Amino acid sequence: MDDLWFSEYHTPSVRFSIKVNSQLHHEKSNYQLISIFDSVEFGRFLTLDGVMMLTERDEFIYHEMITHPALAVNPQIRRVLVIGAGDGGVARELTKYNHILQIDVAEIDERVVAVCRQYLPKTACGFDDSRVHLYFEDGLKYVRHTGNAYDLIIVDSTDPFGPGEVLFTREFYGNCFRALTENGILINQHESPFYPKDAKEMQQAHLNISQVFPVSRVYQVHIPTYPSGHWLFGFASKGPDPINSLQPEYWNGLGISTGYYNTDLHRGAFYLPNYVKELLVNG
Amino acid sequence: MDDLWFSEYHTPSVRFSIKVNSQLHHEKSNYQLISIFDSVEFGRFLTLDGVMMLTERDEFIYHEMITHPALAVNPQIRRVLVIGAGDGGVARELTKYNHILQIDVAEIDERVVAVCRQYLPKTACGFDDSRVHLYFEDGLKYVRHTGNAYDLIIVDSTDPFGPGEVLFTREFYGNCFRALTENGILINQHESPFYPKDAKEMQQAHLNISQVFPVSRVYQVHIPTYPSGHWLFGFASKGPDPINSLQPEYWNGLGISTGYYNTDLHRGAFYLPNYVKELLVNG
Repeated sequence: MDDLWFSEYHTPSVRFSIKVNSQLHHEKSNYQLISIFDSVEFGRFLTLDGVMMLTERDEFIYHEMITHPALAVNPQIRRVLVIGAGDGGVARELTKYNHILQIDVAEIDERVVAVCRQYLPKTACGFDDSRVHLYFEDGLKYVRHTGNAYDLIIVDSTDPFGPGEVLFTREFYGNCFRALTENGILINQHESPFYPKDAKEMQQAHLNISQVFPVSRVYQVHIPTYPSGHWLFGFASKGPDPINSLQPEYWNGLGISTGYYNTDLHRGAFYLPNYVKELLVNG
Repeated sequence: MDDLWFSEYHTPSVRFSIKVNSQLHHEKSNYQLISIFDSVEFGRFLTLDGVMMLTERDEFIYHEMITHPALAVNPQIRRVLVIGAGDGGVARELTKYNHILQIDVAEIDERVVAVCRQYLPKTACGFDDSRVHLYFEDGLKYVRHTGNAYDLIIVDSTDPFGPGEVLFTREFYGNCFRALTENGILINQHESPFYPKDAKEMQQAHLNISQVFPVSRVYQVHIPTYPSGHWLFGFASKGPDPINSLQPEYWNGLGISTGYYNTDLHRGAFYLPNYVKELLVNG
């Protein structure tokens, strides 16, 4: 076997490397460099501009935790907008709910969807459900002009540079607020508290969201293939509180099968370390 | 600057690398290879047999989380035995409690203590308190023969091979049980659930502890420099439950300053992902 390694610099002085069986795909789309690799430890994985997006081995953690907390808080969610998420993982989790009527996915890069359909069927299968509608549009523009009202918006963005940058602006969050119904919830990929550059982006995102939404909380997850393994999601809403409004009996009654999420862990994920709380307060 | 990197293989196919300014120390003791490095991202760090033990940047997470949960559950802890922990970090956290009378540390390798005293004063300062007594002995032998009774035993071991191996056996846990007082608590470094080899060691440790202690729970922590960043500690006891017996008002009244631990996070840390719960049940 070739001694082939994919490496990502989590900081200029920290490098995470995965032994690769082979590179399955490699293209420069209009927006970014898209690569698919096959590995011993993580199965297939997708990178965009050299940054790890998902691996077959641990994507369940990310996709469950960006999706289920909002659904366990508000049983009335019927219409969902997903921004980014061209791999289909969020859509897959959403289609586990029979009462969801509409899942609109605004992904800027249709090549990501095409590549994931070909190489990552375990997540791209999320697009096969008839309730899912794909829009190949810039997320900011989509949410600015949409006439639809959504009960939930999930922002599954890349990091705040390149195509994902606009998805961390106050303007974007303001447009999300307007596109949401009365008890609407916004969930977003919220970067990491550990390495200083990621922490700064996390602080900025939290500051921007807090200035738009009356409820703005952050929760934490273990994602082994992301920098430091300590990753955050944002839970913002027009009213519902992620802990006080949690409906464990309702959610557990749905019988949805998960590998990471459960309603006890839901509560636990919002109890943050002191240093993270301080970063959020002083953002 | 030299382009010098320390690498640890988290599995044969996953490598974590840290840029190093210089190697400050390197020796083969009677038990293991001891190295100290200085780095941009993590400050100084200690490795034993090539495995990351602690970095100045994130050791507070490990040392707080192996120490404070037990103290917040039982305010009557007066006598503590620490096994391993030659860096002094656990002793440092314990000395924050004025009511603790005695802290015995059984570390097999006195060279680890000497090297940490020289290069890692921020943790080794834990040994300076007059309540701390160092015993350079094998942990299993110490606990087998000790005539002392302890309210708390903390096992800050290396991985279950080499000098740390005996600290994962049922015989060792049985001796800990006998050395503990009526409401005694055992806390141990419990490996990780993510990579298969670590997960197997975690399952074996949990099985062994569960066969000795009536209460045996596991809690999780984010430790960025350990494999997968998803690390576990064990909380076993003769009676006290880590959640039901938690005394947040008492602990918060002590005014102990922490960067990671707080009593909300204490609860949250015991709410495990489904896949981890399944590994523990099927161990």
